Amino acid sequence: MKIALLGHGTVGRGVDQIITQRVDGVEVARILELPDRLTEPRMTSNFEDILRDPEIELVVECMGGLEPAHTYIVDALAAGKSVVTSNKAVVAAHFDEFVSQAKATGATFLIEATCGGGVPWIASIEKARRIDQIESFSGIMNGTTNFIIDAMVKQGADFGDVLKQAQELGYAERDPSADIDGIDVRNKTYIAACVAFGCACVEDFPVTGLRTITKADIDLFAQKGLTVKLLGRGVQEDGRYAVSVEPVALSSDTLEAHVPTNFNLLSLVGTTVGELKFYGQGAGMLPTGNAIVQDVIDYSQGRRPVYDFSGELTYDEDLLKGDYVLRTTAEVEGSEPYAPGAVLVHDVNAAQARALFQKALNEDASSFMAALPKEA
Amino acid sequence: MKIALLGHGTVGRGVDQIITQRVDGVEVARILELPDRLTEPRMTSNFEDILRDPEIELVVECMGGLEPAHTYIVDALAAGKSVVTSNKAVVAAHFDEFVSQAKATGATFLIEATCGGGVPWIASIEKARRIDQIESFSGIMNGTTNFIIDAMVKQGADFGDVLKQAQELGYAERDPSADIDGIDVRNKTYIAACVAFGCACVEDFPVTGLRTITKADIDLFAQKGLTVKLLGRGVQEDGRYAVSVEPVALSSDTLEAHVPTNFNLLSLVGTTVGELKFYGQGAGMLPTGNAIVQDVIDYSQGRRPVYDFSGELTYDEDLLKGDYVLRTTAEVEGSEPYAPGAVLVHDVNAAQARALFQKALNEDASSFMAALPKEA
Repeated sequence: MKIALLGHGTVGRGVDQIITQRVDGVEVARILELPDRLTEPRMTSNFEDILRDPEIELVVECMGGLEPAHTYIVDALAAGKSVVTSNKAVVAAHFDEFVSQAKATGATFLIEATCGGGVPWIASIEKARRIDQIESFSGIMNGTTNFIIDAMVKQGADFGDVLKQAQELGYAERDPSADIDGIDVRNKTYIAACVAFGCACVEDFPVTGLRTITKADIDLFAQKGLTVKLLGRGVQEDGRYAVSVEPVALSSDTLEAHVPTNFNLLSLVGTTVGELKFYGQGAGMLPTGNAIVQDVIDYSQGRRPVYDFSGELTYDEDLLKGDYVLRTTAEVEGSEPYAPGAVLVHDVNAAQARALFQKALNEDASSFMAALPKEA
Repeated sequence: MKIALLGHGTVGRGVDQIITQRVDGVEVARILELPDRLTEPRMTSNFEDILRDPEIELVVECMGGLEPAHTYIVDALAAGKSVVTSNKAVVAAHFDEFVSQAKATGATFLIEATCGGGVPWIASIEKARRIDQIESFSGIMNGTTNFIIDAMVKQGADFGDVLKQAQELGYAERDPSADIDGIDVRNKTYIAACVAFGCACVEDFPVTGLRTITKADIDLFAQKGLTVKLLGRGVQEDGRYAVSVEPVALSSDTLEAHVPTNFNLLSLVGTTVGELKFYGQGAGMLPTGNAIVQDVIDYSQGRRPVYDFSGELTYDEDLLKGDYVLRTTAEVEGSEPYAPGAVLVHDVNAAQARALFQKALNEDASSFMAALPKEA
């Protein structure tokens, strides 16, 4: 089977290397690159060369960004070529359109590498759904922020210093907003919710990052036996669902609390299988390349997942309700003292908590908020 | 597709319930039961009724035990019927024979439910192997012993009391030997090694259980920042491999150290994907039933895994080498003091450690041994 790569950056090179060295029966025949980077005969800077090549059955998009990735994916699917992508931003923005386009031509759209890097997360949700309803999912989905929190805990360092470290190691972008403001986790949570609940997830759900977390916050929670992690979460119950992204202060006795460096840990709860967790490298050339190549092999072996967003679920933000801690100098409505400089708000939903936090941020831009686990 | 169940105990009833309530296109048409337990028309006590029924395409063996399970599986495969089983004892004893018999008739042999209950462990090893070499695997594979250790740690209770608790809760058998002597983990490790390394694993590898662990042992390791877990392990390197089952004192900062109650956590390291971990319920009616039904659905969707044990790997016990702690009043050759009543042996392989432990047990039947992690 001949395939084409769109993009030959870190992930594209990983895919090329894995397929060439380790996979029989698949050939990377064409590679789309920028005009000034055409270093070998397989490369072209003209997408039409790939689109019009009848021998190319499948296109792997690993360019990143919204455009031209969006257009190329739509065009490839419209031409009946199947698409594998690792681009969570473009899938989160156009999932529904891609799925409709794939249905229209009978092409297949595969997205394992958009969430959790090498962790078989999307395929595991799909597999669980063959039997179970997904009652809930949650996870550490962003290696950069996990690296930052883990280093803050272990080195007793402060946010800015560790962020600089992460940038030097290549774990964080020069502009780290997508990671530390929760946008990256938001996109992965959106995709997971669509797949897990079988519906087009609402676009607008509460997203809080951890840009303002301090060493003092880490210490405060540690004294209570808690460890902060940035989690994406979704729940489904009786035809309703809710999703959120926010820092959660978890019991230090959970597996999540011990996820080191830039690893991911993704969980689901299914009706009959109960709780399953999946752990691994959430990013990187070879793990993400591996996830893409697994999709390519699945396709070559005849797997044809068809996403169906026709589920008529109602978004109900009260499904995700709990207690929240805000560390702030601002006054927080309905709160009680939690610790010096921090207050506790009981039994609000993630959207209400987000609103309280926004209000606090307007008064004290350094404020930080974390959800408490149900049992704490 | 019509299938038959051999056995209608806990797991068989789980399979029956899940298929009837949640899976379209599969019908449990016949059930093999004891003559005095035939409570409904689908049931028969005569295996020939199933074997000779041309409409039965697949047989699910969930009787447990070696015979007649072994004979029924061989007969079904010889008749060209595919077999799904949750019976780790019979697979560990006859894996090679079952695989040869399946090859001979083109039948399929599926074993997800033999290891890790609802955790997709065997399928994950197979999937990783499509691209990677499995460099190593390890895991908490026995819920009973994990329940016992977890309760000892959390309740500060002693082994005997917690074992009684586990028996009352149905987590441990009346005769707990298979669990606490490591036999159950040995069988799962054997099966995982065959699948992961693509060779017929040696029958005879070091197996140590934790029948003799005491509250004092737990406390001793806790003081060193370590938590004991019973692990099955395998490594592969340069055409050689080794496997072992033994208590390992892991850093309390690992995910393994925080696996609660009767859950399992199974890990593999692949060449390109790196480290992956899989967590879930290792036993129980619905999780194990779920694993069996996943195999049935896989089969109905055309998945036909073919096990191949033709890999010419050499067993080399020196691949699993490390430091061991023995708590014993016996004198241990080449040891140095570790703590009051306990000694440390440096850099021995699992077989050498097992031999030292056997010798210590002969002098002091209450002795306990655990491997130390490489970095400790």
